[in-house]
Amino acid sequence: MDDLKAFRQLGSGTPGHPENFETPGVEVTTGPLGQGFANAVGLAFAEKHLAARFNKTDLNIVDHYTYVILGDGCQMEGISNEAASLAGHWGLGKLIAFYDDNHISIDGSTDITFTEDVLARYEALGWHTIWVKNGNTGYDDIRDAIREAKAVKKKPTLIKVTTTIGFGSPNKANTYSVHGSALGSKEVEATRSNLQWHHEPFHVPDEVKRHWSHHVDEGASLEAEWNKKFAEYEKKYHQEAVELKTVISGELPSGWDSALPVSTISESYCHMYTPECPPDATRNLSQKCLNALAKVIPGFLGGSADLATSNMTLLKMFGDFQRDTPEQRNIRFGVREHAMGAISNGIAVHSPGLIPYCATFFVFTDYMRAAIRLSALSESGVVFVMTHDSIGLGEDGPTHQPIEQLFSLRAMPNILSLRPADGNETSGAYKVAILNRKRPSILALSRQKLPHLNGTSIDAVAKGGYIISDNSSGNKPDLILISTGSELEIAEKAAAELRKDHRAVRVVSLVCWELFEEQAEEYKESVLPSEVTSRLSIEAGVTLGWEKYIGQKGKAIGVDRFGASAPAGKIYKELGLTVENVIAIAKTL
Amino acid sequence: MDDLKAFRQLGSGTPGHPENFETPGVEVTTGPLGQGFANAVGLAFAEKHLAARFNKTDLNIVDHYTYVILGDGCQMEGISNEAASLAGHWGLGKLIAFYDDNHISIDGSTDITFTEDVLARYEALGWHTIWVKNGNTGYDDIRDAIREAKAVKKKPTLIKVTTTIGFGSPNKANTYSVHGSALGSKEVEATRSNLQWHHEPFHVPDEVKRHWSHHVDEGASLEAEWNKKFAEYEKKYHQEAVELKTVISGELPSGWDSALPVSTISESYCHMYTPECPPDATRNLSQKCLNALAKVIPGFLGGSADLATSNMTLLKMFGDFQRDTPEQRNIRFGVREHAMGAISNGIAVHSPGLIPYCATFFVFTDYMRAAIRLSALSESGVVFVMTHDSIGLGEDGPTHQPIEQLFSLRAMPNILSLRPADGNETSGAYKVAILNRKRPSILALSRQKLPHLNGTSIDAVAKGGYIISDNSSGNKPDLILISTGSELEIAEKAAAELRKDHRAVRVVSLVCWELFEEQAEEYKESVLPSEVTSRLSIEAGVTLGWEKYIGQKGKAIGVDRFGASAPAGKIYKELGLTVENVIAIAKTL
Repeated sequence: MDDLKAFRQLGSGTPGHPENFETPGVEVTTGPLGQGFANAVGLAFAEKHLAARFNKTDLNIVDHYTYVILGDGCQMEGISNEAASLAGHWGLGKLIAFYDDNHISIDGSTDITFTEDVLARYEALGWHTIWVKNGNTGYDDIRDAIREAKAVKKKPTLIKVTTTIGFGSPNKANTYSVHGSALGSKEVEATRSNLQWHHEPFHVPDEVKRHWSHHVDEGASLEAEWNKKFAEYEKKYHQEAVELKTVISGELPSGWDSALPVSTISESYCHMYTPECPPDATRNLSQKCLNALAKVIPGFLGGSADLATSNMTLLKMFGDFQRDTPEQRNIRFGVREHAMGAISNGIAVHSPGLIPYCATFFVFTDYMRAAIRLSALSESGVVFVMTHDSIGLGEDGPTHQPIEQLFSLRAMPNILSLRPADGNETSGAYKVAILNRKRPSILALSRQKLPHLNGTSIDAVAKGGYIISDNSSGNKPDLILISTGSELEIAEKAAAELRKDHRAVRVVSLVCWELFEEQAEEYKESVLPSEVTSRLSIEAGVTLGWEKYIGQKGKAIGVDRFGASAPAGKIYKELGLTVENVIAIAKTL
Repeated sequence: MDDLKAFRQLGSGTPGHPENFETPGVEVTTGPLGQGFANAVGLAFAEKHLAARFNKTDLNIVDHYTYVILGDGCQMEGISNEAASLAGHWGLGKLIAFYDDNHISIDGSTDITFTEDVLARYEALGWHTIWVKNGNTGYDDIRDAIREAKAVKKKPTLIKVTTTIGFGSPNKANTYSVHGSALGSKEVEATRSNLQWHHEPFHVPDEVKRHWSHHVDEGASLEAEWNKKFAEYEKKYHQEAVELKTVISGELPSGWDSALPVSTISESYCHMYTPECPPDATRNLSQKCLNALAKVIPGFLGGSADLATSNMTLLKMFGDFQRDTPEQRNIRFGVREHAMGAISNGIAVHSPGLIPYCATFFVFTDYMRAAIRLSALSESGVVFVMTHDSIGLGEDGPTHQPIEQLFSLRAMPNILSLRPADGNETSGAYKVAILNRKRPSILALSRQKLPHLNGTSIDAVAKGGYIISDNSSGNKPDLILISTGSELEIAEKAAAELRKDHRAVRVVSLVCWELFEEQAEEYKESVLPSEVTSRLSIEAGVTLGWEKYIGQKGKAIGVDRFGASAPAGKIYKELGLTVENVIAIAKTL
């Protein structure tokens, strides 16, 4: 009750928009329109997937409906059409959506901008639809609609419920002025009188309490019933029960990380990738990680927005999650980046042990940024696999070449942006991503082949930044080259040349800024000693922000313009991302 | 022909995706899926609007169709559903879209993810639809479809054209392998033989040249005809012709900028807003600018994504652009931020003198980021009016409070991010936005009231950063406080206190980083002298990136976490954005 009284006040359980982790019972953080609906598609996906994997003919251990309420604004957003198209394609029969058709949005009547036939659109998307014409008081109609929706097992159902916004308020009902503003004391009085509600503010009559308290008993008995069923399940299906428990608890199977690939030379065992291993694109190295992880983590699953063969995200031992094969773990999101992100958030919050990854070209994080932000805000540990991470993707040109995306994600709270340079760092990035269950990770991966470098390491990635090579002593190099991902090779080669001129050069991989910032001052000082001001960064993206590490006296090589359509090598040369340029600028420091 | 031979090579006119300004005849920059379709809705909108304003019963001076081709990928993207819903609502009868229904996307058959009934969906969105079943060779069917589409005057038309991808290639047709890869010499040979095409590579037979050269004459004669018609129009409708010419040429009417509001005290004339003028939110000050500009700039028009009364973006002297009132200039985009951005891009490139603005909450730039980026890349000078620009929006909470958005847009090439502090700076920001016709502007505006400050100025905004107040001499302040927007007031108040302790304090407004960077070194040094290292920034957003201006020895006050639902004042206090905190930290510098 205190929370209700502190509506939209600092620290209350009733913030302006629902937030999971703030309020018990709130399953997803919504507010930005369309997100909650797409989350619901993710929740229903998770139920269908887990049911297919764990239910037995005699024991339905995963069995629930997913309900979602959405409004006119949600319906206008593109993300909801993307998510609805997927829900229809997948035949998510246990997803029931209530569309609050109240004809009013913030700017007034929806007639000014929204005159489409929503039900016909949903039918075209493969949904069953029902219209409840009196949503204000037609409780039996709503109950009937739910029954009908449950009876339709192969399609999701949209129940359009026509309502009056502000129902009961004699002067403000059916107007936009009740959308976001309080009624005001006079209109509250008029509404109470109109609804014949004579109790004090915040008083819940005993009759209402009694009615709702039934649900406590009902819930407790349902839980007891399920626990009993699960005990039986554990006895009969021990192995499946162990797996399902890890999905429910989120506990990672012990030793899972030893599955991470350490070398491309499969014949000879080695502790890490070395320069002798054949060069490879980090997107390919990523694929090895994905496949390795899916083998040992039961809840690991995911897919791409129609770029599986470019992002290299197919799990080879599994088929596609489809309407009739929901036990499979490859998700075909289609070209629907925004819904992909929000559906993944829904899957992640369904069960702590479900770890969804989703993939597209790095530049298209722009299409799904709102969902990525909600992933960060709602602590959904989604793994965002973003390949083609720079102008190095080449011929597709500036519309496809990320320039500012890495920085713009580094600026976002509670998300890790990792840009690994080779095999060791790619495995290390996945280790970080899997361990961080309360914050999502962005993996920025190359299209182009990269050599494995001496000095990189799986475990060092967890520190965010570390020394790759150094010929200085006493923590006093003449020069520090700082780089990430595909440019670390360039930094290394330049350092090798500069050392021939007897310069003491350190090369630092700053694979994840957020993790580096979390290290102890002493460690950070051991990597980037403050008295060394000759610093040069090289990264194929904007230089803005690099001042943090290069300081006022350092210099940055980067890309502060849109890219160009050309083979990768040519663009790198054109924009000065070369060993020669690093050497030339280093000599001015 | 050289350009064709240099396909996807540096500097050629045939980049990997079409780019305006790179290739003559390319009207919009597309590539990211769904954008081109939404651009087309903008182009058709512009035609309908200009036709309604300038056509006369006896003289149709604006009269063209808009054609667009879109594929399966475009159809899956949410943005295309948003744009199609608007096109249907607006009844854009001269918009004709060809949907290349080839059943193949990058990951293979569209059956794996895209099984909706597209035509039924478009019908639900208010479109006329036609299906051409043989799009490979059914030229007459396509011609018939266009004729039918033209005959339907009140609805846009979607022509679904079923085709075979890679038609003619005997072994690769109808597979995803012809989507993005070259056929290879063997398959090229087989295809040539199959199509009975026996010419050398890059040879255009005379017969083909002759056929196409008809279009040159046809085009020339259409142009001559239009010129003649326009000469007549100029005689008969002089005033309208003058206006239309500014729309076509993009030349701004002389003296347009004197319309910008300079004071809120309408009775007494003053050259600028002063502290005596009543405090106001910059979103309200923005509305005065919008209304003033619409009076003097014939091509100025725009709207909001269902937040007109929050963004304060209604043009009071105009009605709504609707199906039957297309001459009006308020655009009701609905909750469709992504399409709003891309439609605005289309309007902007239709005619240089059309200056569209579009609006939503600043945090929802995340929903439209891909369109904003294309605005920057394609030099569409759209004005993005983004209100509720910080945690200062208060109770709506973290999902609605931008934290990292400003910085993430500062990182984007070719776009100006402006965060004005008061009336003078808001007018100055609009002046910059209107003058920059080749790069878009983002205006970050406050929900909360702000005082007008001494020292701000309309013209100084064009320099990006300037001194607001200073009690130092010889360009050697003890301390520089750097701030933007709503926090400039805090900086000013803190400076006043610090000066009481005999400190020489300068306050700098860094209203637009991009413009400041473009100033001469001498000017920059006069504002931020490099020998003054005691610097403190205060801005209600991430501190990452501020190192650029505060240096290694400076400090930054900002917000490096998600916000919270509470009244603005409480959050500001909770997060240390207060005069007291500025003073306390300043004393450590």
